[in-house]
Amino acid sequence: MDWTNLLATRNAQMKASEIREILKLLEQPDIISFAGGIPDPKLFPVEEFQQAYNDIFSGQSAEAALQYSVSEGYPPLREWICAEMAKVGVPCSIENILITSGSQQALDYLGKLLISPNDTALVGWPTYLGALGAFNAYEPTYDQLYPNTNRSADDYRQTAKINGGQVKFAYTSVDFANPTGVTLDRRERDSLLDLADDLDIAIIEDAAYQALRYDGEAIPPILALEIARKGAIDDCRTIYTGSFSKTLSPGLRVGWVCAARPVIAQMVLLKQASDLHTPSINQMAVNAVARACFDTHVAKIRTAYQTRRDHMLAALTAHMPKGVSWTKPEGGMFIWLTLPKHINGAELLTQSLKSARVAFVPGQAFFADGSGGNTIRLNFSLADGDIINEGIRRLAQLL
Amino acid sequence: MDWTNLLATRNAQMKASEIREILKLLEQPDIISFAGGIPDPKLFPVEEFQQAYNDIFSGQSAEAALQYSVSEGYPPLREWICAEMAKVGVPCSIENILITSGSQQALDYLGKLLISPNDTALVGWPTYLGALGAFNAYEPTYDQLYPNTNRSADDYRQTAKINGGQVKFAYTSVDFANPTGVTLDRRERDSLLDLADDLDIAIIEDAAYQALRYDGEAIPPILALEIARKGAIDDCRTIYTGSFSKTLSPGLRVGWVCAARPVIAQMVLLKQASDLHTPSINQMAVNAVARACFDTHVAKIRTAYQTRRDHMLAALTAHMPKGVSWTKPEGGMFIWLTLPKHINGAELLTQSLKSARVAFVPGQAFFADGSGGNTIRLNFSLADGDIINEGIRRLAQLL
Repeated sequence: MDWTNLLATRNAQMKASEIREILKLLEQPDIISFAGGIPDPKLFPVEEFQQAYNDIFSGQSAEAALQYSVSEGYPPLREWICAEMAKVGVPCSIENILITSGSQQALDYLGKLLISPNDTALVGWPTYLGALGAFNAYEPTYDQLYPNTNRSADDYRQTAKINGGQVKFAYTSVDFANPTGVTLDRRERDSLLDLADDLDIAIIEDAAYQALRYDGEAIPPILALEIARKGAIDDCRTIYTGSFSKTLSPGLRVGWVCAARPVIAQMVLLKQASDLHTPSINQMAVNAVARACFDTHVAKIRTAYQTRRDHMLAALTAHMPKGVSWTKPEGGMFIWLTLPKHINGAELLTQSLKSARVAFVPGQAFFADGSGGNTIRLNFSLADGDIINEGIRRLAQLL
Repeated sequence: MDWTNLLATRNAQMKASEIREILKLLEQPDIISFAGGIPDPKLFPVEEFQQAYNDIFSGQSAEAALQYSVSEGYPPLREWICAEMAKVGVPCSIENILITSGSQQALDYLGKLLISPNDTALVGWPTYLGALGAFNAYEPTYDQLYPNTNRSADDYRQTAKINGGQVKFAYTSVDFANPTGVTLDRRERDSLLDLADDLDIAIIEDAAYQALRYDGEAIPPILALEIARKGAIDDCRTIYTGSFSKTLSPGLRVGWVCAARPVIAQMVLLKQASDLHTPSINQMAVNAVARACFDTHVAKIRTAYQTRRDHMLAALTAHMPKGVSWTKPEGGMFIWLTLPKHINGAELLTQSLKSARVAFVPGQAFFADGSGGNTIRLNFSLADGDIINEGIRRLAQLL
């Protein structure tokens, strides 16, 4: 049986990442890994979740937790999210909220909602690998949003036309982005809104790391800035995606989209057709735990990760040779290193696994055009201070 | 903000079902509803699930339950599924199993995997509405698989070419199908395999109701028949989709795909890009409950639903006027009525809600070509015997 002739054309863009395959092999205990992008499981609110699941089964909601449910999501959780959105300048109602199975699913649905083959998505060079993966299934072309050289709306529009489609959206992670750790400042957020207004396109604002700010002042989400300009969320082009993966638990796969009603209404149809709904039991548990301890729990995580970030930044300063530069993120989980031009991140990884026994993610995969060969991503959320220092020391020595 | 110009072309096919909107309004307690397609929540194994979630948090697996996990699914659950598949004549390994968020997600992924716009999907007239919904997102055309008038492979091939694509798969629900309750017999399964071999296409075998057989003898799945012909699952074109929704719990959204390794490997990439993985905690709980009580629990459900089916068949015989015919399903949840040609199911529903106070689903939505106006679907899994009799009596009176 030869499947090649049966696969849809989109599969050509859905290939296993070589890097992911290499990293799968990293189970040896003597390797120090800065490769992951996952929260420290020791910080999960295990007892609170145990209580929440037990309460669900002990109370009136046991049958509802196991039964089919509505595609929009569990109303009490959507209400809690509304209240949180209001705190960051986004007044909205539960009709503006769709619960998704993690914000990864939101990105998949947004690709499905907006991209016809050859349409253009504007993304950063680099950008979140998972966003490229989700969008690729809908066969877009990509154009460069950041860093750019002040290209005009007309320029983007003409390039998209040459590529056989139209510009549909700009995707950006706003706070301590994966992979760079960089935050868009207020002026950049305003400029992006101007550009999107000019182009009449959507903005996908990925706020996955928003709660993990360690210092500096919080900047309003782009959606908040747009509501301030236009008066109401239902008149806005910004589609905000949020997640509980970095705050309460990634494994429960609960995230959300906050956007204008027509967008949510159409996404509900996509959800109905693709998996009916996100499991209610997990939404109920997240709702209970969020209401019980969200702020105190997030404060605890912030303290732990801030210390690790500080350790990694200090170790980089202490050990790295000249010619290597890095970002100083105000939050999140990642630091981004730019190496001298002649050093390739993927080759460095192969060497590093052999001799330095340190793992990281080469940066090239985060670039839609395959550039960025001399960059790497380091994660600081998993390892303790001493190990971070030792890992950076070894990596610096190799460099 | 006008979103029309930004939506991908596929959204034209993703419309809210009018019927679904009508049925949403059915919360009045005096309406007898045969409209749903959902299991009786009183039959859920609530205590077993409570125990399972509690054990997860009390044991070694609490952190793993809340952490990111692999896209393929929870290995112990995949092993349990392998053992079940072997029992129905499908020897396979866990590399042949992908866990999905319900079998609805499997259908979405299979559309994504196989359909480029204008490719042809062969489906029954009628077929499962949710399959049409999932496939529609990938802009196929449909051709009629059942009932047909012995069309040749060449005929299907040429029609597909005229429609601008190629035939990619035949989709069929094999046992007690939603909506008709009809089961494909052994000869029909063999013929479908012959046709698929001739056309060199995939078969999507939807086995969602397979465990709910009340009488008659079990027929091997198409995948089992194909393995018997070809020797090994990895040489087979049949892609089997299974579900725990009708046996243990629909709300946990756990289903699976069983197919040749190259199909599973590519679907893992689709899953990675679309929602990373199905929540581990629910997979762990389903695994524990399935191992503890699957057979005894399913036997209990079968007994309950069989009684209800018998009540509904008896009530139909007792009350329905001449000119109305119906299927006699050997399992599942549905009976399919064919009304006299001049009666339209949707109009009947409107009248029925007003005067008879009985709800059901008009059959037209299950036909890819919009035919079948004089058909309706009745569900028998939710109501008790007396209520079933009263509902059928009222509906018959209206007719």
